[in-house]
Amino acid sequence: MRGMADNTLPVTASAPPVPDALEVIRTRSVVRDYTAEPVDDAAVDTLLEALLAAPSASNKQAWAFVVVRQRARVRRLRAFAPGVIGTPTLMLVACVDQSRVGGDPNLAGAARMCVAMAVQNFLLAAHALGLGACPVHSFLPDPIRLLLGIPGHLKPVLVVPTGYPARDAQPSDRRDKDEVIRYETYR
Amino acid sequence: MRGMADNTLPVTASAPPVPDALEVIRTRSVVRDYTAEPVDDAAVDTLLEALLAAPSASNKQAWAFVVVRQRARVRRLRAFAPGVIGTPTLMLVACVDQSRVGGDPNLAGAARMCVAMAVQNFLLAAHALGLGACPVHSFLPDPIRLLLGIPGHLKPVLVVPTGYPARDAQPSDRRDKDEVIRYETYR
Repeated sequence: MRGMADNTLPVTASAPPVPDALEVIRTRSVVRDYTAEPVDDAAVDTLLEALLAAPSASNKQAWAFVVVRQRARVRRLRAFAPGVIGTPTLMLVACVDQSRVGGDPNLAGAARMCVAMAVQNFLLAAHALGLGACPVHSFLPDPIRLLLGIPGHLKPVLVVPTGYPARDAQPSDRRDKDEVIRYETYR
Repeated sequence: MRGMADNTLPVTASAPPVPDALEVIRTRSVVRDYTAEPVDDAAVDTLLEALLAAPSASNKQAWAFVVVRQRARVRRLRAFAPGVIGTPTLMLVACVDQSRVGGDPNLAGAARMCVAMAVQNFLLAAHALGLGACPVHSFLPDPIRLLLGIPGHLKPVLVVPTGYPARDAQPSDRRDKDEVIRYETYR
């Protein structure tokens, strides 16, 4: 029995290995339907770490994020985001912090792109952990602000329903590569 | 000798393995100085595949990308992008395709975020391949448009100098996690 025990993997190695980065980037797809299985604290920490590892224009880090998992609050939040289809077990609200970009419209535009990059990190980390998510642009910012107590200088720009996928994600149809990529010049 | 040969990895396995997705997300950092080593066609294909695997609001794919590697053209492009510091061997110009979002300002904003997400995929794929890059918001769009023949309906929003890192990237200082993340509500 001792011999068998020596051949048994330790319990800590039982989590599936994280797939390689290129595979995760290639195979991520939008997930709109979720099981009821909750997202645990360890997974949330990994997702948040990924968010905050994004590039930041002029290192302003002009962003703020609210993570919602309580079921009643998720349900109310969902009511203000008609772009959310299934019932997620986690919702991320991603905001631009306007107090950190002053009145500079270029910097405000850049800050919004940085939030999008952070959310892309979140989506990829979610996929790497076996979760699925969907960036949603269609929501009512004012009721969400009120529900979550988000102050005026933070502008919600994306809502991200997240959870374990209820079914296999379908890759979306894509335009031909030659239509959207040019080499050296556009001509 | 046969025994030794059996223990030798095949030549096709000689490329370093791609690190796992979470590691790539965590360790990516801005790279501003590059060696003269060119980015080969296989790497370019991988980078472009990553770009086009990004999410797209309403699946509009309202984006277009120009990849520049010819040295003289990179040098001229660089002259119009004061945010570019070193001498990259590749420059990506990432554009929103305004003809695909009509006059809808919400969709235009979403399209810009999708381009940013695509560029984040590009940055992560670059890091996974041992390349380094830096998203640059500060550039002169009109001369770049003229130089590359970019038509009026395409709006350049990011320029991304890319190449093999000349030195180890330094992670940037970051705000405390508790400052930018809230759980359940912002209060």
